[in-house]
Amino acid sequence: MATAPKLHAVILAGGAGERFWPASRQAHPKPFLRVDGEESLIQTTVRRARRFAGRNCVWVVCGREHAREIRKQTGLPSDRIIVEPRRRNTAMAIAFSTQRIAASFPDAVLAVLSADHLIPDERAFAEAIRKAARAAREAGVLVTLGVQPSRPEPGYGYIQVGRPVGRGHPGLRSVRRFVEKPDLTTAKRYLKSGDYLWNAGIFVWTAQTLLGEVEGLAPALHAALVPLEGVKRPGAAKLRAAYDAAPSEPIDIAIMERSSRVWTLPVKFRWSDVGTWESLALELGVKTGTTVVVDGDLAHDDRGGNLVWSSSTGKNHRTVALLGVEGLAVIDTGDALLVARLDQSPEVRNIVKALKADDREDLT
Amino acid sequence: MATAPKLHAVILAGGAGERFWPASRQAHPKPFLRVDGEESLIQTTVRRARRFAGRNCVWVVCGREHAREIRKQTGLPSDRIIVEPRRRNTAMAIAFSTQRIAASFPDAVLAVLSADHLIPDERAFAEAIRKAARAAREAGVLVTLGVQPSRPEPGYGYIQVGRPVGRGHPGLRSVRRFVEKPDLTTAKRYLKSGDYLWNAGIFVWTAQTLLGEVEGLAPALHAALVPLEGVKRPGAAKLRAAYDAAPSEPIDIAIMERSSRVWTLPVKFRWSDVGTWESLALELGVKTGTTVVVDGDLAHDDRGGNLVWSSSTGKNHRTVALLGVEGLAVIDTGDALLVARLDQSPEVRNIVKALKADDREDLT
Repeated sequence: MATAPKLHAVILAGGAGERFWPASRQAHPKPFLRVDGEESLIQTTVRRARRFAGRNCVWVVCGREHAREIRKQTGLPSDRIIVEPRRRNTAMAIAFSTQRIAASFPDAVLAVLSADHLIPDERAFAEAIRKAARAAREAGVLVTLGVQPSRPEPGYGYIQVGRPVGRGHPGLRSVRRFVEKPDLTTAKRYLKSGDYLWNAGIFVWTAQTLLGEVEGLAPALHAALVPLEGVKRPGAAKLRAAYDAAPSEPIDIAIMERSSRVWTLPVKFRWSDVGTWESLALELGVKTGTTVVVDGDLAHDDRGGNLVWSSSTGKNHRTVALLGVEGLAVIDTGDALLVARLDQSPEVRNIVKALKADDREDLT
Repeated sequence: MATAPKLHAVILAGGAGERFWPASRQAHPKPFLRVDGEESLIQTTVRRARRFAGRNCVWVVCGREHAREIRKQTGLPSDRIIVEPRRRNTAMAIAFSTQRIAASFPDAVLAVLSADHLIPDERAFAEAIRKAARAAREAGVLVTLGVQPSRPEPGYGYIQVGRPVGRGHPGLRSVRRFVEKPDLTTAKRYLKSGDYLWNAGIFVWTAQTLLGEVEGLAPALHAALVPLEGVKRPGAAKLRAAYDAAPSEPIDIAIMERSSRVWTLPVKFRWSDVGTWESLALELGVKTGTTVVVDGDLAHDDRGGNLVWSSSTGKNHRTVALLGVEGLAVIDTGDALLVARLDQSPEVRNIVKALKADDREDLT
């Protein structure tokens, strides 16, 4: 059943968020975190998507173990939750969900979002998506949002922008190349040059353009999906077989870096993928002298500059006091306590790895 | 009823231990802490005293609110627990308990100890006490133990030693003067000079010598005690009146600094009054690269040099992970969490003060 071209939002909620241990766990990953004390990241993302997506056009892609919680948190109908039988990286998650949506909405325009980004200026964001959608529809291109860097961040991939694409689509630029996470010196050079944007992993395209590029550029991925073509509700075995057959690649490598039809829309709004406790602290306003309490009861803090999250309630309530410390994340869940230097927070993954190696899966 | 002169131990258990918040509280002060995971400090102190004290000659002086727990922890009979109706500093605690003990044992020799010191070499300690007791008995002097300093510690008072007292009592020295806590520069000079010892607040004397000095040097204190003279079990009102009348002074100022009958016995064993989390950490072996876990489950610690105490059990069990931090005390009780730089741990008192000022007595 074809309908008028609508703008759909496809929210990827696949990440484990090991770097947000102990607040995020396998059973309670990063999209479920309530970093501002009220909404979870996925709730915020769905609300943000509703600003531009058509009625009943918000989709979430997730693993089986999180589907129920996502339905509960977002209120989305179950036919808008696309459940992956296993994790197979973003190329498969995107291609599969695009195929699914195209089965009902063949001329859909899709905005692919992550469930765990922070974008405070929702109006500017929706405007950018709509602009990108018009380009995607009219020019048949893959549009990726490029965020104006505000600091030399070695934790992000970058897009080197090319020329303006022309009068019909002011603001949109061609892409010279994608670059992986640089070292700090290179990131500083990028910032200074003005030619590089953060690769936010936010994409806009029509279902047909994307599926065409998958067919042309990622034959193994395409082959895995052929048996599901036009199927609105694939059976478990068929689905499993497709996922087993699909290569595990990020969309950037499988499609974006290979395609000649990629444009970027430079945007200036604040954006963060909140990849670490440090980046979350930055987004929440932690700075020298200023501590931010996400949740909990902080009775004493003489220095400031810390991130405190003591998400304990009722019987587990606990009062936190900090003395002489700064630049720390103090994350206290009921069953685990992390005290970490914010500037070393990427290493939190190693704690999770070590716990797994120690057969302490209960804590991961 | 007079008996043969026996060596008694009088253990002062009056301290609140605010600097060990949150592990110590008004209702659970420092002597009750189990710093090695097994015995509490007061249990260790009683056991240590039994090495030299006569049978049934170990006494504890404490406030009413702690008497039951002390009986429970030490197994002492209730007539060996001397309950003060209010806190009135050490001069009154010592003079009152000495009077009480003298009522039954007029020629008792007393060793006055604190309930919250660490002295690992119990044999050397007992030997020193016996040596001091002989001097106290034979020469009628007040003996104070002077500990050979192992570092320039500005947190302790010092004793400047005088000449050897003579052939009858080898090792014992006269006292030139007592000095209050010095600054670091002065403490370094003291250490270098070899003339200064730590004032450990451990005293040995006969009941009669002490009471004589109280009468001669501290008339207000003596006057307060006169109504209780010879009374083995004073009534509550009488006791209260004596405490209300008594001045609140430390024994050092009321007696030791004024008396001309003070000797010191220099000792070389390890001693600590464990006044702060930092000094406890030092005693327990925390050093660069080495973390000590008093209690709890430490899953990760990449730097070392921390003190971890997560005294939570059962439902409150919690796994601790440290990342990139060193020199910290991480003290996690069921209801409170302290993260403090060890070198700023004297300031913990300020947290307790602030909690009291905020009407949060439940946490103090």
